[in-house]
Amino acid sequence: MHRTMLIAAAMSLSAPLMAADGAAVPYPEGYRQWVHVKSMVINPGHALFDAFGGIHHLYANKQAALGYKTGKFADGAVIVFDLLEANSADNAVQEGPRKVVGVMHKDSKKYKATGGWGFEGFKGDSKTERAVGKNAATACFECHTAQSKNGFVFSAFRK
Amino acid sequence: MHRTMLIAAAMSLSAPLMAADGAAVPYPEGYRQWVHVKSMVINPGHALFDAFGGIHHLYANKQAALGYKTGKFADGAVIVFDLLEANSADNAVQEGPRKVVGVMHKDSKKYKATGGWGFEGFKGDSKTERAVGKNAATACFECHTAQSKNGFVFSAFRK
Repeated sequence: MHRTMLIAAAMSLSAPLMAADGAAVPYPEGYRQWVHVKSMVINPGHALFDAFGGIHHLYANKQAALGYKTGKFADGAVIVFDLLEANSADNAVQEGPRKVVGVMHKDSKKYKATGGWGFEGFKGDSKTERAVGKNAATACFECHTAQSKNGFVFSAFRK
Repeated sequence: MHRTMLIAAAMSLSAPLMAADGAAVPYPEGYRQWVHVKSMVINPGHALFDAFGGIHHLYANKQAALGYKTGKFADGAVIVFDLLEANSADNAVQEGPRKVVGVMHKDSKKYKATGGWGFEGFKGDSKTERAVGKNAATACFECHTAQSKNGFVFSAFRK
């Protein structure tokens, strides 16, 4: 099964509450007050459109912001991938409704099986509807292994 | 002269250091750590493309963040309009180099002539090259008067 399809399938599953190793990733309360790392728009035709189409913003809590600087993410670091619909009209792209709040939560012990990161997606504006659950290893970590030299993180802080 | 052209002309001028009433708007040190308000992409063909084409992010300092909540912006509130090139390729839009750091700085006394807001643009990554200077009234405030009911602010905080 193609990786992109795996992600898409995982995001659309009604997933159980627990991560692979039994530790649910908590909803990232207050992340809209966190530091904005960078943004990107993914349009139709992109390989990741089914899973991540729209405009997304990455946010980092204090520990994660430090991780972007040092290259090492300590336990407690949380990165949010805030995915919104991208509404194109009149030669502009506006932010639309929220599609999913993706989360990477660093805890070397709890999430040892997936590089020390817990992965989860909260659907739309829900703090309880989970899109990843126990599928983190295949739905998220499989792609993130490509970034092992960057602590399994794809993004870099835009200055 | 068309409003859009006025803006574009003003942004490209080598402007003097002082605002219309003599008070230069300070560079917004540390704004990349501030709260992210919202974002938008302005593409070719949009009426404001010449002045504001690219991807922009709005950031608010603490006083401004409070202003977005209450609808009243107190003195000391600063809003940054961070404009980057939007690089489209492979069905995605990535952030490119910075074009300008636009600033609205609230000080009812210093900037009385322009709704209590000082307006400035800092070119690219420069903290000293000013794009607006004494042209704030025509280059910025003229459009912002349309938002008098919202404290002359166009943006709203995206939850």
